[in-house]
Amino acid sequence: MRTYVCSSCGESFPVEPGRWCCSCGAPLDLSPLPAAPLRLDEGLRSVWRYRAVMALDPGETAWRRVSLGEGGTPLISEPVSGEVYLKLDFLMPTLSYKDRGAAVLVSKAAELRVGRLVADSSGNAGTAMAAYAARAGMDAEVFVPASTSQKKVDQLRRLGATVQRVEGDRTDAAAAVRDRIRGTGVFYASHVYNPFFLEGTKTFAYEVWEQLGRRAPGTVVVPAGNGTLLLGAALGFRELVAAGAAERTPRLVAVQSELCDPLAAAWDGRRADLARWTATVAEGIAIPDPPRLAQMLRAVQASGGLCLTATDEQIDGARAALAARGIDVEPTAAAVWAAWRAWPQAADTPTPVVVALSGAGLKA
Amino acid sequence: MRTYVCSSCGESFPVEPGRWCCSCGAPLDLSPLPAAPLRLDEGLRSVWRYRAVMALDPGETAWRRVSLGEGGTPLISEPVSGEVYLKLDFLMPTLSYKDRGAAVLVSKAAELRVGRLVADSSGNAGTAMAAYAARAGMDAEVFVPASTSQKKVDQLRRLGATVQRVEGDRTDAAAAVRDRIRGTGVFYASHVYNPFFLEGTKTFAYEVWEQLGRRAPGTVVVPAGNGTLLLGAALGFRELVAAGAAERTPRLVAVQSELCDPLAAAWDGRRADLARWTATVAEGIAIPDPPRLAQMLRAVQASGGLCLTATDEQIDGARAALAARGIDVEPTAAAVWAAWRAWPQAADTPTPVVVALSGAGLKA
Repeated sequence: MRTYVCSSCGESFPVEPGRWCCSCGAPLDLSPLPAAPLRLDEGLRSVWRYRAVMALDPGETAWRRVSLGEGGTPLISEPVSGEVYLKLDFLMPTLSYKDRGAAVLVSKAAELRVGRLVADSSGNAGTAMAAYAARAGMDAEVFVPASTSQKKVDQLRRLGATVQRVEGDRTDAAAAVRDRIRGTGVFYASHVYNPFFLEGTKTFAYEVWEQLGRRAPGTVVVPAGNGTLLLGAALGFRELVAAGAAERTPRLVAVQSELCDPLAAAWDGRRADLARWTATVAEGIAIPDPPRLAQMLRAVQASGGLCLTATDEQIDGARAALAARGIDVEPTAAAVWAAWRAWPQAADTPTPVVVALSGAGLKA
Repeated sequence: MRTYVCSSCGESFPVEPGRWCCSCGAPLDLSPLPAAPLRLDEGLRSVWRYRAVMALDPGETAWRRVSLGEGGTPLISEPVSGEVYLKLDFLMPTLSYKDRGAAVLVSKAAELRVGRLVADSSGNAGTAMAAYAARAGMDAEVFVPASTSQKKVDQLRRLGATVQRVEGDRTDAAAAVRDRIRGTGVFYASHVYNPFFLEGTKTFAYEVWEQLGRRAPGTVVVPAGNGTLLLGAALGFRELVAAGAAERTPRLVAVQSELCDPLAAAWDGRRADLARWTATVAEGIAIPDPPRLAQMLRAVQASGGLCLTATDEQIDGARAALAARGIDVEPTAAAVWAAWRAWPQAADTPTPVVVALSGAGLKA
């Protein structure tokens, strides 16, 4: 039986609906995947192809009711730059890669017989969580900052969620969720703290590995806000190496906006200048204080990777450049392409290179 | 060598860039697929898995440069209603099923060494054509009615297309294209007249057949404006039966808006009341005078199918109902679900039933 393990102090806990962080306050991981030959469900094109490596009860079929067909996104060659691939990871039911995580997290909630969940994202993660809760027939209550646009609130409501507007910023919304659930045992579907979200995002690695002919890429370039794709990818590639299915883990390149770069700052050993963090066009990765920051830094370091930043001007330019090749993504997704294009050592990084595009253009 | 064959009078023509309709003015088809055992490219998840049945030159690899990874969309069970499946055919690079057709049509254009193309859709087909032309490195010129929203014009421009605004409606825009290309040999990438578009949309049938365990569904419910999905699906299932891969073709149920129902009217033997056709929320299927109308009618008849219509109120209701189950689609796509839900005989139609959802919610 796999358990929760603290990402910071290592304390472990049984997987129960009311447990969302360690007693020390840090986000949770899962105890490691037991060693076993890798088994794929070849009949499925979705993330559920990799169900055997997820920390779900093998006897449960809740995922069948919860799935919206997420995953199996295209990996296309980038025609200009040699052995570079774009992973169109926004071609998911709610148009962002967050569906990988939400599908698995809500499936686990269904296994745990949860009837309602609470969440606190007004962005792509919130949309994904609301959609999967709706699919699963669960009530969803989403706490958002009062400043959240009416358009986003309307979309959450259309997906059946109850929206609670909280005075203040994201931190205040998160605090409101925690007040709301304290002592109630209500399931906190946190894409940041709950490691079942990473059980979903790790399928990014398995898919890329399979699409490249069962080999790991040399380099993977991902957006980094709360790090759910970065940490999921790191986990997936680590598992593939542990299973003897891949020879190496790729170099992980984490991308942030220049206006909100706590990870890049920690990487450089400087203090992040967050005076203008809400101003960036890359709002999906504008997270000034990510709870898994130390873990993100370790993942990049362990991979021999690095952190890059992009300016808003570079992001707008990269978005236009991608569109002019037929690929319309939101600014947060374009940030990754912007940083990679501007990186002087891009030509020298191990190939193949996979660049993750995380959200559809119509989101913006 | 496969040739163009007129869908009305049967005259045939070689496949050349400047040929877009019959000398009688009717849209073109392709001469039938030669008999051969069905061969899939199992290594691909996209429409190109079915390349062997497309009328493309087997020695050409242009499609590799043109593809954006389209196809391979989820088929998910509809949890309430028994053996009913939703095909999320909007999970494509430009967020509508039109990418199936545009990918194949533009690949053919690349085979024909076409450097520029013209088109005349301001909707999902235009977006798809612009994106694939951009991917292929071709110039695209898109003629749209002057009334087209700035948002749509901007999107076409972001995808690198030159936009020509034409005074009048869609018919005037189409006439302007034809004036523009007369005698020039310029490639008219018409999703309505050019049968290579249907070579792409027919992959809908092959995919559904494969996802159901290599059997055809009993009933397929599709939107019908210009009929590109209806005719593509009919073609694909016909080919599967001819290849001995399926026992039957499914019953085809074509759905239109009550405010723009030329096919349903022809089906019922009445005159369509088109006084308010521009008013419907289902703008993607609001085509008052589809050039392939007779062919659409024959396809529905040959399948033992029928035509249904939905009111705007039903469409809005169906859109909300789908969103409340986690699936956010545009009104045109919701029309199909609306009509199927309201159809008194829905429970008696042959199963499994596959309902095509054609465009993403954020399109609206």
